[in-house]
Amino acid sequence: MDTYRQENMSKNVDQETRTPNWSAGAGYIDGKFMPIAEAKIPVTDWAYRRSDVVYDVVSVWDGVFFRLDDHIARFRRSMNRYKFNIKETDEEIRTILHKLMALSGLRNAYVAMDCLRGQAAPGVRSPVKARNYLSCHAVPFSTLVPQDKIERGIHMMVSSIPRIPHACVDATAKNFHWGDLNLSMFEADEKGADYPVLLDLEGNVTEGPGFNVFTVTNGVVATPDYNMLEGVSRASAMDICAELNIPFEVRKVSVAELRDADEIFVSSTAGGVIGVSRIDGRILNNDRPGPISEKIRETYWQKRLAGWHGEPVNYELE
Amino acid sequence: MDTYRQENMSKNVDQETRTPNWSAGAGYIDGKFMPIAEAKIPVTDWAYRRSDVVYDVVSVWDGVFFRLDDHIARFRRSMNRYKFNIKETDEEIRTILHKLMALSGLRNAYVAMDCLRGQAAPGVRSPVKARNYLSCHAVPFSTLVPQDKIERGIHMMVSSIPRIPHACVDATAKNFHWGDLNLSMFEADEKGADYPVLLDLEGNVTEGPGFNVFTVTNGVVATPDYNMLEGVSRASAMDICAELNIPFEVRKVSVAELRDADEIFVSSTAGGVIGVSRIDGRILNNDRPGPISEKIRETYWQKRLAGWHGEPVNYELE
Repeated sequence: MDTYRQENMSKNVDQETRTPNWSAGAGYIDGKFMPIAEAKIPVTDWAYRRSDVVYDVVSVWDGVFFRLDDHIARFRRSMNRYKFNIKETDEEIRTILHKLMALSGLRNAYVAMDCLRGQAAPGVRSPVKARNYLSCHAVPFSTLVPQDKIERGIHMMVSSIPRIPHACVDATAKNFHWGDLNLSMFEADEKGADYPVLLDLEGNVTEGPGFNVFTVTNGVVATPDYNMLEGVSRASAMDICAELNIPFEVRKVSVAELRDADEIFVSSTAGGVIGVSRIDGRILNNDRPGPISEKIRETYWQKRLAGWHGEPVNYELE
Repeated sequence: MDTYRQENMSKNVDQETRTPNWSAGAGYIDGKFMPIAEAKIPVTDWAYRRSDVVYDVVSVWDGVFFRLDDHIARFRRSMNRYKFNIKETDEEIRTILHKLMALSGLRNAYVAMDCLRGQAAPGVRSPVKARNYLSCHAVPFSTLVPQDKIERGIHMMVSSIPRIPHACVDATAKNFHWGDLNLSMFEADEKGADYPVLLDLEGNVTEGPGFNVFTVTNGVVATPDYNMLEGVSRASAMDICAELNIPFEVRKVSVAELRDADEIFVSSTAGGVIGVSRIDGRILNNDRPGPISEKIRETYWQKRLAGWHGEPVNYELE
């Protein structure tokens, strides 16, 4: 790290003049720090070749991590679920994420932590003996959709492709099994929608690519309880419902309920809470996010800017 | 490529004395050749972060590619199925694979071709606009199990984790969605077995990690017809059955049929045909591969060594 910092920052350590190298993002792989462009993994690594990897992503807004403890705790649960072991403790992971932010100088960022399977000795094909390792990186923050689409609401469509069942791959352990989500994004594009939402094999709502889904019907918020990631932003939306005395239910949500909902919104580390204005072409709320969705969105950002579950980045970290 | 070759081979171009750098394998990424240790992809690439990638693997034995046309054709079908587009034609892919073999100097190799989604512009989350690219590599050949286990037969167990359904991720388009297979290999290890076999959600046999599965019952060979990769080695095993007048059926194979079979064998690019001697602890054929399995295995290797579907590597390629 120090060599890089010296090379890139010795002339000027002011954040405004950091070289583009670092401001594009910073990476950490198995003990070493580097500019994001150099953060690479071997094509032979099973994390890539067998998607044998778990991860998590925490956001930083205005220099403050959001619910960092929750993200690190979930990352550890994902590692345990898929039998990963790394040398770094939770506290060491926390320090690495702060260092990545300090190196990049970013104020708003998307900070990922991945646990990779690695590989075993040549000729050994079982993952049991592989040496696992940690890779983290920070890149500039981006939301699910640009600001103009946040205001007009997401146009959502129900994918024809079902989400991978929980029994096959446990979505509560955050993973990169996105084949169903990937092809669904092509389907959304073909239909002129911003995002797909995927159903389970029984026709209940699961999740979309990078977000949880909520319906609002007769003033009651509902979100699925199974076969999707238990999002930290989803928990935040539920916390806000409780605070605002908005009744909410965590249970099966059928596709019929989704299509007939008064409002729909999504939650994601990539933007918090965002309203939906169309579902399969049906127009909701005069083609704008609904009032309860907007209230939750506004409260989410008010609370975040006020430091809710916040941990300021230590930009002085060496 | 030429720079690498000159650096590593100028003192001695004899294959026996190539530097370890190249003999460990060779890579090609998006237009450039490199020793395998330098073949890396960005941690931000969707091929890794969303497992948005298809691939294929062809084997080289004693300097001869096996069914290279079939592998490249399937690779192209996988790319089309998941909406990938690369600049290289099938003929260019073929040339790249030959060059990788020439660079590595390997006589027996496992030669992979991957098509990666890449990434779109910063802030764009849909895969539709990403620039896809090709990555290929050649590494030393390895079989599913070492030679002593080929002779005593694979110990197989039925996984408790079902294979990802075809409706969610199409296994006929060769992909890295191995979460179910990965955890099943831990389960096999815990039970003292060499490999798991996975069932579909209805309890029919699908495939194992890197191989297709066959049963032999009353002299008839059967293999599943759905929810698994249509292996090139599987096709070879069926060709050999036809040649040897062994009746075979391609249809649903229930787990009961698997457990009661007279013989079981597997097919894979990583070893051709290999017999199974135990299933869930039940001993088959006096704890050795069965006679029909062995006949197919021997015929497979006799035919390969005689040049069946073979294409000799052009080791002189510059």
